[in-house]
Amino acid sequence: MKVGIIGASGYGGLELIRLLHNHPEIEQIDLFTSSEVGTVFSEKYPHLVTIHDQPMQAIEQEHIRQLDTVFFSTPAGVTTSLLPPLVGVGPKLIDLAGDFRLKDPSLYEEWYQKDAPEMKFLEKSVYGLPEWNKEQIKEAEFIANPGCYPTAVLLSLLPLLKNELIDGSQLVIDAKSGVSGAGNKPSAVTHFSETNENFSIYKLHQHQHIPEIEQAMNLFANQPEPITFTTHLVPMTRGIMATSYAKVNKQVTEKQLLDCLRETYKESPFVRVLTDIQKIGTKQVYGSNYCDIHVKVDPRTNRATIVAVIDNLVKGASGQAIQNMNILYGLDETTGIDNIPSFI
Amino acid sequence: MKVGIIGASGYGGLELIRLLHNHPEIEQIDLFTSSEVGTVFSEKYPHLVTIHDQPMQAIEQEHIRQLDTVFFSTPAGVTTSLLPPLVGVGPKLIDLAGDFRLKDPSLYEEWYQKDAPEMKFLEKSVYGLPEWNKEQIKEAEFIANPGCYPTAVLLSLLPLLKNELIDGSQLVIDAKSGVSGAGNKPSAVTHFSETNENFSIYKLHQHQHIPEIEQAMNLFANQPEPITFTTHLVPMTRGIMATSYAKVNKQVTEKQLLDCLRETYKESPFVRVLTDIQKIGTKQVYGSNYCDIHVKVDPRTNRATIVAVIDNLVKGASGQAIQNMNILYGLDETTGIDNIPSFI
Amino acid sequence: MKVGIIGASGYGGLELIRLLHNHPEIEQIDLFTSSEVGTVFSEKYPHLVTIHDQPMQAIEQEHIRQLDTVFFSTPAGVTTSLLPPLVGVGPKLIDLAGDFRLKDPSLYEEWYQKDAPEMKFLEKSVYGLPEWNKEQIKEAEFIANPGCYPTAVLLSLLPLLKNELIDGSQLVIDAKSGVSGAGNKPSAVTHFSETNENFSIYKLHQHQHIPEIEQAMNLFANQPEPITFTTHLVPMTRGIMATSYAKVNKQVTEKQLLDCLRETYKESPFVRVLTDIQKIGTKQVYGSNYCDIHVKVDPRTNRATIVAVIDNLVKGASGQAIQNMNILYGLDETTGIDNIPSFI
Amino acid sequence: MKVGIIGASGYGGLELIRLLHNHPEIEQIDLFTSSEVGTVFSEKYPHLVTIHDQPMQAIEQEHIRQLDTVFFSTPAGVTTSLLPPLVGVGPKLIDLAGDFRLKDPSLYEEWYQKDAPEMKFLEKSVYGLPEWNKEQIKEAEFIANPGCYPTAVLLSLLPLLKNELIDGSQLVIDAKSGVSGAGNKPSAVTHFSETNENFSIYKLHQHQHIPEIEQAMNLFANQPEPITFTTHLVPMTRGIMATSYAKVNKQVTEKQLLDCLRETYKESPFVRVLTDIQKIGTKQVYGSNYCDIHVKVDPRTNRATIVAVIDNLVKGASGQAIQNMNILYGLDETTGIDNIPSFI
Repeated sequence: MKVGIIGASGYGGLELIRLLHNHPEIEQIDLFTSSEVGTVFSEKYPHLVTIHDQPMQAIEQEHIRQLDTVFFSTPAGVTTSLLPPLVGVGPKLIDLAGDFRLKDPSLYEEWYQKDAPEMKFLEKSVYGLPEWNKEQIKEAEFIANPGCYPTAVLLSLLPLLKNELIDGSQLVIDAKSGVSGAGNKPSAVTHFSETNENFSIYKLHQHQHIPEIEQAMNLFANQPEPITFTTHLVPMTRGIMATSYAKVNKQVTEKQLLDCLRETYKESPFVRVLTDIQKIGTKQVYGSNYCDIHVKVDPRTNRATIVAVIDNLVKGASGQAIQNMNILYGLDETTGIDNIPSFI
Repeated sequence: MKVGIIGASGYGGLELIRLLHNHPEIEQIDLFTSSEVGTVFSEKYPHLVTIHDQPMQAIEQEHIRQLDTVFFSTPAGVTTSLLPPLVGVGPKLIDLAGDFRLKDPSLYEEWYQKDAPEMKFLEKSVYGLPEWNKEQIKEAEFIANPGCYPTAVLLSLLPLLKNELIDGSQLVIDAKSGVSGAGNKPSAVTHFSETNENFSIYKLHQHQHIPEIEQAMNLFANQPEPITFTTHLVPMTRGIMATSYAKVNKQVTEKQLLDCLRETYKESPFVRVLTDIQKIGTKQVYGSNYCDIHVKVDPRTNRATIVAVIDNLVKGASGQAIQNMNILYGLDETTGIDNIPSFI
Repeated sequence: MKVGIIGASGYGGLELIRLLHNHPEIEQIDLFTSSEVGTVFSEKYPHLVTIHDQPMQAIEQEHIRQLDTVFFSTPAGVTTSLLPPLVGVGPKLIDLAGDFRLKDPSLYEEWYQKDAPEMKFLEKSVYGLPEWNKEQIKEAEFIANPGCYPTAVLLSLLPLLKNELIDGSQLVIDAKSGVSGAGNKPSAVTHFSETNENFSIYKLHQHQHIPEIEQAMNLFANQPEPITFTTHLVPMTRGIMATSYAKVNKQVTEKQLLDCLRETYKESPFVRVLTDIQKIGTKQVYGSNYCDIHVKVDPRTNRATIVAVIDNLVKGASGQAIQNMNILYGLDETTGIDNIPSFI
Repeated sequence: MKVGIIGASGYGGLELIRLLHNHPEIEQIDLFTSSEVGTVFSEKYPHLVTIHDQPMQAIEQEHIRQLDTVFFSTPAGVTTSLLPPLVGVGPKLIDLAGDFRLKDPSLYEEWYQKDAPEMKFLEKSVYGLPEWNKEQIKEAEFIANPGCYPTAVLLSLLPLLKNELIDGSQLVIDAKSGVSGAGNKPSAVTHFSETNENFSIYKLHQHQHIPEIEQAMNLFANQPEPITFTTHLVPMTRGIMATSYAKVNKQVTEKQLLDCLRETYKESPFVRVLTDIQKIGTKQVYGSNYCDIHVKVDPRTNRATIVAVIDNLVKGASGQAIQNMNILYGLDETTGIDNIPSFI
């Protein structure tokens, strides 16, 4: 297969390159850019010397149409205009940005402060959360790959909400992310001397992933209530932890919660439900496509603490995009992305 | 004043040494140890060469009684036997450990899994949270210095609970700490290669600071309900953030919450209420005795997110202990601890 | 192939597990331990849940003899007694420890402060630096896998010494390593709060890798002079940089140095010679088996600065061990270890 | 005293603010800026809320002339035009930038790629390395505060060179710095996700501190030879280590080197000569004005490894500037900067 990456020099693009390199079905990777045409990729990123020494190419429709799969790893707002002309003309399309995730254009415009895509394209997009939407993904014209935070939150909460084991009306979700989630553009937020040794909270109640989480909870688990969601920046590069708090429904036990999670994901190779542990940390999924989940009920308050960890760049972005590609092509969904986490 | 530090080689002790060095009323600091008598302090800690080149001394009652103030910076369980013989015999006593914080000995035994101190001494101990207990501290026979997490949680929540602006029956507190909170004893939890780049959750619902927080909420704000409290380990050395979630009571506005906090702390030099900010992080109080607080109401859920940051070793331990010492002696409470945070 | 890892729970072992997982010729990995027999591996290391849920096994000769390859990832001194009985009885043997690297037993005893292996086994060991010793490796009875620092130092200096482009009599080598080089045993040196934000120097002139480097310089490049070698600890987990300083021989130009390096390694897939760069860092080889080399001559002093970076756990240990295994079996030497560095 | 800081929002400025806050002779600190006039300082830097809530002021000569001391903490090239008009008109002037350090204007123009200041002002500037130039500093019209790397290098090497104990003709200096040395302007070099866990080398043989070091070696120690000097970036915020390598002159012992250092600095409160240590790290001077030095001779090569650590923002910049101010005013040179390092 020949694939193209549009926005190759961003972190989503770099991680696609890293993962696709070991994918047995990929024979060619073309790297596209709008702003750095002609730059030799390995001069910008020396870790790719001898591996990607070709120059980045201009985004030309004719070229792109001949590819088998195109990944869009671009800032919000770009695929709204770039993707529609490519729908149905050839390559399978996987959008890592947020443009086509929200079915309601007014929500996109409210939370992203940008013009939404046309309705007819929004309707065609399929939300690429494989563990919950595999059948639709198989038939998709194009994929809206989920956001990093939503992936961790939804994988850990959807089973418990759908099976009415926890109370969806009072969800509190405290999410934490490594700094790579902010991308490769230097700014005060990502400036080493101010970020290092500094755990911070940002975008209180205003993160654009909130409507995405709520839409999916409504769609997959009939949970229509708004959530309380905050995001924190951890002085580390990779990793997301979502710690969620929910009232447990009457008579429900911790064992039922764990059984529900295990039952839901018994066929899902990338979701691991942990029990009897002292500690769960982001490093245990570092570099891999796993999502590890744990739940514990506090008998004093009858509230459950549900924990999920992912690598934001893999299961939270590029790994999941490849998982979607695998499904689109009828491959085993773990093809090329079954590597072990790099715990140390 | 002559002061002594028992347990000098722990991190609480080291931080007392650092802060007391610039305290204008201190003329002598004696360092005591039970396990390393005779070790030259600066050989163990070379950052103190030329500053503390004396050997650590054995814990002898006669010597200790001649001091003006004694700080106990020992592991849980040690002051239960070590402190009582010194009550009322001379020096002012400030215990940085948890032994005398819980008034109900059965709670101590349940959460600490150790024998509680005698009731008559528990009754004499005064909880050293100056912003809420200054009058009692002034008259105290000895001080139980608060835990690190409780300091951040209580300073940010007590005003809102006491004034019945938030619903105390459904509190969710998501706390995060730097690794220095685990002390100076090497272990798997603090092993660099496994802690670095690893954000983890530990002691779910089981942290021994839970009953301390609940006791203080009951005492200072008439809030008797159990809390949901979890603790996370951040790959950084210093700093605590407590992110708390509470239902806002009817008709209460964000402005009222902020006004309440500001009013409560208008005479408290170490508590700063922040507004109109994009970000709040632990580094903005690094090395200082400040506690910075921010609150924001989510109109979609009518839930408030209340954020507090402290340096766990300063306001969360040694700085607050010195603040208590200052109050005990009638000094300005900022004496010796009014340094600016080291943001970079 | 069936392989066994003795000392599986150390970092060398963990990294072997991570890399061998994606090796197409490996069908089974047995994990051996002397101290934790019966412990379920994934309970100790949760990142391996669903991947290595088997218990660790006792080191039994009969079992081990049936394997195709055995990796020893044990502390110094263990293989001196453990390895000899297995020589020639079946499995190929690769020792990641230092026991069999030094041909002169008195040097081992001086620098390691342990009894050296028997001479007859020392004579049989082959130093597993593939880029310099491939023919011998192919025929080896067993392999002494190089140390982490020597790998970086030798790959960057041997070509220049052998071709007499630099003066070997005044070499200064300033080496820096991430903390994972210290292994998984907690100690003060690896305690997060004292290691984080702390760049330190250790073992001045006394590192046990010194005689290993000198032996190889003598053997492969006829350079018999002692080196000045120091080691530093960098507050990061992985990565080694060796910065070496050498007088450039008369009339030799920077271009000649670079050409020599390129020519030497034109058939070596894991060595990359970089030119025209602003910066070279350990992250550009993170998680991979690459060694990146750069050299620059200072015309003011006619001294060359030669820089090499590797991932200490991959090219500096487990990746190189697999590279040796590949060569022993006549496989392409990149099999299973041709992954891209994880730059972010 | 009333002091002003020009370029207050840079890291040199922030650190001056932090340190001057505890200086007993300072009653007022005015903050000047060229680009952010009117910005409330604590809105830019929330760690200063309640401490510096005043707006930054325009750089007006009339205002500045009324101050007692003015610190210039500006990028290279600014004081060349800004400082001369203030010489001799009132305030004592301390320049933290490099503009007036090099007496030879052609060197400045070569290494800084900027126009040099006028010769008559270059001649008046006094190099502010108090341990070596105190008498001149006392009488100075204005001070050129030393660079961060030169401070560590010169303090550790000058005594040995001046006393002809080491060979100055073959000096190799391998220097390492935390990221705060790069200032507060976001760039790829300081972008967290690419700097974290990445030890890198930069500006090989081209750092602008090279001529500064050479000038001072010539001036203070009659050592006219060029040096080999490289600089590395450590993934931490603060701290510099300079590891220097020198041939020991004939018959000279390690003890002589240590004695020479101790004798040289016996009256210097900020220089500590360490002996009998296993490890020396940057954290042992963190936040303080100390420079710790250690030296060890390798009998195998008769080469000495000389190690110096400083906090680049304190002894390497703002702390040393205050030390100079103290000397200019005849105060004890430790006034306000005698705080203990924050080892944890």
